[in-house]
Amino acid sequence: MPEGLDPWGMEVPEDYARLMQEFGIRPLEELLPSIPDPPHLMRRGVIFGHRDFERVLERMGGGRYAVMTGLMPSGRMHLGHKMVVDQLIWYQRKGGEIFLCVADMEAFSARGIPYDLGRKIAFEEYLVNCEALGLELERCRVYFQSRSQQVQGLAYSLARRVNFSEVRAIYGFSGETHLSHLYYPMIDVADILHPQLEEFGGPRPTVVPVGVDQDPHLRLARDVAAKFSEEYGFLPPSSTYHRLMRDLFGGKMSSSRPDSALFLTDPPEVWERKLWDALTGGRPTAREQREKGGEPSKCLVYELCMYHFAPEDRELLELKERCERGEIICGECKEELIGRVKGFLRELEERRREVRPGVERLLRRISP
Amino acid sequence: MPEGLDPWGMEVPEDYARLMQEFGIRPLEELLPSIPDPPHLMRRGVIFGHRDFERVLERMGGGRYAVMTGLMPSGRMHLGHKMVVDQLIWYQRKGGEIFLCVADMEAFSARGIPYDLGRKIAFEEYLVNCEALGLELERCRVYFQSRSQQVQGLAYSLARRVNFSEVRAIYGFSGETHLSHLYYPMIDVADILHPQLEEFGGPRPTVVPVGVDQDPHLRLARDVAAKFSEEYGFLPPSSTYHRLMRDLFGGKMSSSRPDSALFLTDPPEVWERKLWDALTGGRPTAREQREKGGEPSKCLVYELCMYHFAPEDRELLELKERCERGEIICGECKEELIGRVKGFLRELEERRREVRPGVERLLRRISP
Repeated sequence: MPEGLDPWGMEVPEDYARLMQEFGIRPLEELLPSIPDPPHLMRRGVIFGHRDFERVLERMGGGRYAVMTGLMPSGRMHLGHKMVVDQLIWYQRKGGEIFLCVADMEAFSARGIPYDLGRKIAFEEYLVNCEALGLELERCRVYFQSRSQQVQGLAYSLARRVNFSEVRAIYGFSGETHLSHLYYPMIDVADILHPQLEEFGGPRPTVVPVGVDQDPHLRLARDVAAKFSEEYGFLPPSSTYHRLMRDLFGGKMSSSRPDSALFLTDPPEVWERKLWDALTGGRPTAREQREKGGEPSKCLVYELCMYHFAPEDRELLELKERCERGEIICGECKEELIGRVKGFLRELEERRREVRPGVERLLRRISP
Repeated sequence: MPEGLDPWGMEVPEDYARLMQEFGIRPLEELLPSIPDPPHLMRRGVIFGHRDFERVLERMGGGRYAVMTGLMPSGRMHLGHKMVVDQLIWYQRKGGEIFLCVADMEAFSARGIPYDLGRKIAFEEYLVNCEALGLELERCRVYFQSRSQQVQGLAYSLARRVNFSEVRAIYGFSGETHLSHLYYPMIDVADILHPQLEEFGGPRPTVVPVGVDQDPHLRLARDVAAKFSEEYGFLPPSSTYHRLMRDLFGGKMSSSRPDSALFLTDPPEVWERKLWDALTGGRPTAREQREKGGEPSKCLVYELCMYHFAPEDRELLELKERCERGEIICGECKEELIGRVKGFLRELEERRREVRPGVERLLRRISP
């Protein structure tokens, strides 16, 4: 990647910069030279910030470290979720012990999803796709919150030293807040810290890759880790922050807006139709675009390539240059992407079929 | 028992009467004629109030009903606890299904007792004594809160419809209240309601025999049962209220005041010494007492007989009359009681030895 440039048009936006300043998140850029084979999400500034990631880097050479993440089984898996899974796959190759939490208690209290349904969604949408994308679940610690006595027990134990004022300050709780919602942050903190319990491997660096909107949980987890450092030997958890993936019209990608999100289990025709509708950085007319060039930094098709469908930096940079020079217009670009996406989806579906029986066995073991 | 009299000097004290009025607790007296073989604690007004106890009475003929109680493993078992166990024994004979909760989560959050220690205390102090007193634990559902996924899961589920304002109004919580303390009432409510889950026998009348100080939990449990009556079919739990047993100097008997409480595992000599110190309803001089008679209603020795050591009403009434007529003075009375108590303690210790291995097996099964 050429130095001194921002080849991806992905400077940290202003509101992220403010967040970083306010909460002491460090730019990931400063560590980039010492990260071994950084994944494209790091190289391209999609993962833009961190706390204490040095601690984890030191262990990448061979020491032990944990990676913790959660998936809430309340909707369908989309490309925003895939971004996290891609990170897990990278960490797994780099020797990280992956803890993958099925946040069914959160799905229950936040969305009213009963545990049975949560289990089904976790399997069909998330676990099968994770494995199909390349995460080796058998080498992960996959668990359901509602079935983990250790996590629930730890949550209650840690809750002895967190009072209402503290969580109110972080989450804005009020008298109307229901107790399940009010108590849930302790479950989340226990998820994050439990890999450091003796029975799960003992105190060690743990990284939690999150979207920047998840930082409140991390701040609470770090506070709590400090309060209990003597009792449990906890190190404060490290974290990295990625941009929130946008949907096809520029909002936050979410399964609650199905028309603008791209779901991993949707058939290629649906993706094709949605992609044709996607907002681009194109000009009003083809002629104008040929003359002035497009604006990749505004383009959601370009964003898809940057996040997911152009693994080689050279390839992405070329696309950007061709667009800016007006050598390719949006219709052509979408067609190229659709071709690539169809290959990806076909392969993914094939892989899902292959891995399904194994994931089903794993599920029966961890959640009978 | 002679009608129209208050033979035990045990009219409901004023502060209890106020509580009853304020919170709608009904006098148990109104049901007494329809209670089959009421135990001495009911006959004597020690259990003085109830809510919806009719519902349970209707089932005593043969229908199914549950009885729910908890013991907090944080100290030693004393006569105040025995009063509850005596009620359980009676209910067990009357066909009630007994749910006995070891409230180790409460002991942990309220007293800082770790679960390991809680388990040990539950065994040595409570479970062995319960069985030795005559409760058949193998026929009860004994469980530890910290190990009951069902209770914890139910608590979280019910917490979806209880907000901070509600628990603040009942318990006076504030910003400084820790989340474990703030959340604990939901565990308690789940203890009370879980016998009505399908897997534990389904919706049916459930009685919770409590000291009057425990009523806030019951009020919350009834509110919550109503909120979830459609979802789970819960009947509002019934309850009975007993007086708080006083210690030897007239305070509330508590294991945190060991000098004035009578512990079931203390040797007879310790009881003897403590009983000699106990406050009585005697007069300043023996002569005055012979003339005016004693005042049983003020006497803690009399209270011990009424609650525990004079199972026959006739016997207790005679003691009262002899005292009031000045026919027996405090020293003689204490000596009589000490004789009886020694027999009780010897027999109890013998029984503890006998039942210990069986209780140990039960413990290993429910809390490996």
